[in-house]
Amino acid sequence: MKVIRSTPARFGRTDKTRMRKQAAELLDRLRRLGGGADGSVTRPVYTPAWNAAMTELERWFRALGLEVWVNAVGSRFGRLRGRNPQVILAGSHVDSVRQGGAYDGTLGVVMAACAVGWLAERCGQPTLTLEVLANCEEESSRFPGNFWGTRALLGAISPGEADRLVDEHGTTIGQAMRECGLDPDRIPEAARSDLVAFVEPHIEQGPVLEAAGASIGIVDRVVGVRQLHVSFVGETGHAGTVPVTRRRDALIGAAELVLAARQLAVQAGTPAVVTVGRLLVSPGGANQIPGVASLSLDLRHTDVEVLERMEGDLRDKAGAIATHHSLVVTTERRLDQPPIECHPTIRRLLEDTATELGHAWTRMPSGAGHDAQLIATRCPSGLLFVPSKNGWSHRPEEETELAHIVAGIEVLAGTLYNLAYNSAWLAA
Amino acid sequence: MKVIRSTPARFGRTDKTRMRKQAAELLDRLRRLGGGADGSVTRPVYTPAWNAAMTELERWFRALGLEVWVNAVGSRFGRLRGRNPQVILAGSHVDSVRQGGAYDGTLGVVMAACAVGWLAERCGQPTLTLEVLANCEEESSRFPGNFWGTRALLGAISPGEADRLVDEHGTTIGQAMRECGLDPDRIPEAARSDLVAFVEPHIEQGPVLEAAGASIGIVDRVVGVRQLHVSFVGETGHAGTVPVTRRRDALIGAAELVLAARQLAVQAGTPAVVTVGRLLVSPGGANQIPGVASLSLDLRHTDVEVLERMEGDLRDKAGAIATHHSLVVTTERRLDQPPIECHPTIRRLLEDTATELGHAWTRMPSGAGHDAQLIATRCPSGLLFVPSKNGWSHRPEEETELAHIVAGIEVLAGTLYNLAYNSAWLAA
Repeated sequence: MKVIRSTPARFGRTDKTRMRKQAAELLDRLRRLGGGADGSVTRPVYTPAWNAAMTELERWFRALGLEVWVNAVGSRFGRLRGRNPQVILAGSHVDSVRQGGAYDGTLGVVMAACAVGWLAERCGQPTLTLEVLANCEEESSRFPGNFWGTRALLGAISPGEADRLVDEHGTTIGQAMRECGLDPDRIPEAARSDLVAFVEPHIEQGPVLEAAGASIGIVDRVVGVRQLHVSFVGETGHAGTVPVTRRRDALIGAAELVLAARQLAVQAGTPAVVTVGRLLVSPGGANQIPGVASLSLDLRHTDVEVLERMEGDLRDKAGAIATHHSLVVTTERRLDQPPIECHPTIRRLLEDTATELGHAWTRMPSGAGHDAQLIATRCPSGLLFVPSKNGWSHRPEEETELAHIVAGIEVLAGTLYNLAYNSAWLAA
Repeated sequence: MKVIRSTPARFGRTDKTRMRKQAAELLDRLRRLGGGADGSVTRPVYTPAWNAAMTELERWFRALGLEVWVNAVGSRFGRLRGRNPQVILAGSHVDSVRQGGAYDGTLGVVMAACAVGWLAERCGQPTLTLEVLANCEEESSRFPGNFWGTRALLGAISPGEADRLVDEHGTTIGQAMRECGLDPDRIPEAARSDLVAFVEPHIEQGPVLEAAGASIGIVDRVVGVRQLHVSFVGETGHAGTVPVTRRRDALIGAAELVLAARQLAVQAGTPAVVTVGRLLVSPGGANQIPGVASLSLDLRHTDVEVLERMEGDLRDKAGAIATHHSLVVTTERRLDQPPIECHPTIRRLLEDTATELGHAWTRMPSGAGHDAQLIATRCPSGLLFVPSKNGWSHRPEEETELAHIVAGIEVLAGTLYNLAYNSAWLAA
């Protein structure tokens, strides 16, 4: 598929000032919905804060001249109808993790709305239909939903799932939907067959763009993720009465694996990362030798073969450690997300537009999962990153400078212009 | 003080058979009081199970011809009155940890009662008074009591403490006492000024005697214990988006300290032990870089200078690790129990008696804390260990072979004979 490019719409000084103001104001309004005194945002799906944010977005989509509609799972869409019903979708998710920040997900919705609103005003009706997506759920912070909003779009929610997924209070996601006036029996109606492209603007959530001095990151691949649960079993005992050399201390095995995992990632080099985020010791008393120590291993790489090799190396290492310390080890794979390649047409459009507009950009992998990686299985999809201050995300201090946000909106608007106002790329 | 020894009373075949039967029967009755289906015993102080065990012991003390009395905190005593009111005390505690075994504490009471009962029958009235102690509390498993029963004996419970110590349900130890018919206002009356010696029989709780093929362990010193709380603070972040070399992962620091602590104990050699029993990671998600990792360090040694050096080395090591990984470390001392020397007179009496009776015994330190270490500050005290099968303690599988138990009773009876029937050692 060849990229056909028309001149992207460039922002003038007035546009930039307006975008700055518009984006800042909406971010500020949204951060109050689910906002804490420490600047944090807690907005799990189907909660009052989430409802309020969705209502705020509906109001704003209308003010931008977009048609608002709601799908069966409560995702909101702001539509700029084209001459053709095929849809170019842009946006991200509205839910947040607990004690998260104001930018993850939300900023992508804001940027997409600013871009589509600007195109509506400046360029009139497009050839293909443009839609802003305010996705209902991505973070799995209330329900173990695993891309609930996106799976609804793809028709990939299985029958009965609404009654099975429960939050920490035992509320099913179906009940939570009903409390928001949504009917879980209608979930299948959320499935789309009219999508032809998706572009997701999002904060980077890491320190790479800031370190590179770039305003824009254009994602070539989303890393594959494997999560393992490793459990070492030794023998507990009294901290005072069992000589050190006679112990089968499970935590010794776990500590060695934590260090081996880091070493493996350093040796493998970028973009390999390995993280032990969870480590539980049992029985857990200060004067008790650990009988069981279990830990999570999160492995990421853009290349599935490297991922496979890393997993094998870590399993071998865990086995060798266990043998050396007379422990029993069990290793269980809990997650296996394959790496995803962003669509070359969308990626090249984003890159060429960023270059033409004169913004500093860099091509990079995404180390985090995003809605785009699932939607990419249905239609050409791309991911555009803007910098995260200090690389911070999922915390109250999340921030992206307005200059970067406006640059991102301009690149997004140019890219959507090329996708929606000139449909020749579709036939190419 | 010179040890003056009279011939100890030796057990005949009939005595051994009777002791075996008596000890086995009482252990079996007591293990049902607070016993679980898995063989575990859960008998925290001032619970119905504890009350029932104390009632059972009272009945049995009476059957052995001992006078029963109860002190203000509910400890039970079985007295064999001598011509002299000064008291030789022997016994241990009746409370257990949760999901513990049938031997820790309890066996010491059983052994002391068997020994004193046998002396009463065979040797008549002693010169000094003999008392069996069924101490109310040692394990701190319900209240953070820190040797509640023994501190009552020593007059070391501070005013108001009964209203301050609470269990996990918010019940104060004073309320719990009242529910057992005890008056917390009378706690000071439990203080003793008539004790002249204490011998505590106890399970070893470790694998040393079993490995040495000995029936008896005679404790020379109780280790000193220091507990530190170490906290590494780095920076949390997304497991996918922060390159490994740019992280400040708190768990890396904690894992290095866990391994360094073990190495330090191995290098220091017996009786040094260091244990990391507790390790907590925050925020704790599988896809979150640990921002905080805190751990407990439990250090034990019989020599306070070595203990001091070990603590210093570990603090230095924690600092060096923190510097190397750009973490902040804080180290706080949570416990400092000095080592205690068992009284040489009691120790030599135990050793000489064991030798004369032909039992395989070994001199050893105690790595666990015991009532004897506090009572030793008041009067000459000694500790006699019998083997723990597989070194197990604080678990349902706790067990000591009856042959070892009978050997222990015989050594204890001989030692108490030397202490109580011939008071010359007191004047020596």
